[in-house]
Amino acid sequence: MSAPDPSLLSLNTVTVKRQWNLAQAIDGCARHGIRGISAWRDQVAEMGIKNAVSSIRKHGLTVTGLCRGGFFTSKDWLDDNRRAIEEAHELQAQCLVLVVGGLPSGSKDLMAARRQIKDSIQAILPEARKAGVPLAIEPLHPMQAADRACVNTLEHALDLCDALGEDERSAQGALGVAVDVYHVWWDPKLEAQVKRAGKKRLLAYHICDWRVPTRDLLNDRAMMGDGVIDLPKIRAWVEGAGYTGFHEVEIFSELDWWKRDPDEVLATCKERHARCT
Amino acid sequence: MSAPDPSLLSLNTVTVKRQWNLAQAIDGCARHGIRGISAWRDQVAEMGIKNAVSSIRKHGLTVTGLCRGGFFTSKDWLDDNRRAIEEAHELQAQCLVLVVGGLPSGSKDLMAARRQIKDSIQAILPEARKAGVPLAIEPLHPMQAADRACVNTLEHALDLCDALGEDERSAQGALGVAVDVYHVWWDPKLEAQVKRAGKKRLLAYHICDWRVPTRDLLNDRAMMGDGVIDLPKIRAWVEGAGYTGFHEVEIFSELDWWKRDPDEVLATCKERHARCT
Repeated sequence: MSAPDPSLLSLNTVTVKRQWNLAQAIDGCARHGIRGISAWRDQVAEMGIKNAVSSIRKHGLTVTGLCRGGFFTSKDWLDDNRRAIEEAHELQAQCLVLVVGGLPSGSKDLMAARRQIKDSIQAILPEARKAGVPLAIEPLHPMQAADRACVNTLEHALDLCDALGEDERSAQGALGVAVDVYHVWWDPKLEAQVKRAGKKRLLAYHICDWRVPTRDLLNDRAMMGDGVIDLPKIRAWVEGAGYTGFHEVEIFSELDWWKRDPDEVLATCKERHARCT
Repeated sequence: MSAPDPSLLSLNTVTVKRQWNLAQAIDGCARHGIRGISAWRDQVAEMGIKNAVSSIRKHGLTVTGLCRGGFFTSKDWLDDNRRAIEEAHELQAQCLVLVVGGLPSGSKDLMAARRQIKDSIQAILPEARKAGVPLAIEPLHPMQAADRACVNTLEHALDLCDALGEDERSAQGALGVAVDVYHVWWDPKLEAQVKRAGKKRLLAYHICDWRVPTRDLLNDRAMMGDGVIDLPKIRAWVEGAGYTGFHEVEIFSELDWWKRDPDEVLATCKERHARCT
């Protein structure tokens, strides 16, 4: 496996969220020669979307995703997702990442939650298409099924794409998946499902690593190379399926990377992307 | 869904492992009218297997499982599993639970680890058959893939049973699965895979609950009724597939149940088994 193209590195701003606001993260990417950025909606709102768009354009960055739409099992999901689609459109984001939501408060009915998720995606899909914003269903790790997303395998996410009839476009689809190695690395069916997804449905590829031991279910991700995920192998599968897009580093790390100097974090992302992925 | 048969309750001794040794747990089960027990090998060794067998017989308890064989990616796995099979035989355990092991130290090669697991089960299967000890592959939650078991779905465990040719017996098989709700509750394919397993391969059924939030990846399980798992629904699937065996309570709980009075824990297991499962 040859080293990845360094120009495909993207920074998900959550990786330095304790240290930098969005304006600082945009400047940081530009300074470090990182060509892609993925932003969170609260940070966009804080900066103001016009300013965010202007700064991102000025530096010629590609917005590899907007985080996040989804949470379809919460109240106000419809208005919230409509706003997210508009924002993704304004930012010219390559996709709106859908974290679909977990069990509604007090419920134990996973099947009902999953039906609700399917119906909700179906409801917003026409608006996303109209806005030219691809929706990327992100299967989250099964340990986050209860509270964040009860779509937990790539197979399940692709079944949803099938059920929603997303096969009419010849090029990139309006509905696809975000593959984050952290959530799916353990899956014995990963290779087959990445192949099944294919170029059209692979809308985003997120990287980090799985720490052993993992000390927290949400905020203990590792830097590429510091864990047990075979990143070159998964990249080979993703590229083998036709994906040519960015490699977005997304690290939630309360105990380590969120405590470091953000310029050190970005320099490490670049070095590890080149050497370990 | 009618309430479960109270005589099918079994106690996995890990549930009170901080409070009681095996002798005390056996006495506790007898005192509380719990008719099944599942023991851990270190506790059996500490008590002495003859004493353990004698006390269990005296109280007429059924040994619903011995924990654990497996860890096939460690050194000395063969001798260790041979001893485990002998001990399970002496205890007349209904199965030897296989926690198959995670990635070998320093490895990122999940596929190689999975091949090694398959080959190792194949190697010990004849001895297990000869000893009359059914081997129960327990798929563990994907969050434990790196360090404890890289068989993480019921589908994968059953694929292993298929690959190892376990279909020649008409009644209970020599190789099957242990279904622990904690590890598999999130799986969109659970119902179908439980059905696929069928009576022959369903060797054990373990219950507890999934706490929201979960504060630790290993030792933060909840008591039945205190989490989000739809236990009556999963029991209906398991019984619908033909399972008539025990319901084994297995709770690892550093912050709660391991701190409580063990008689309170057992009384709560009984009450929750009747009311919440």
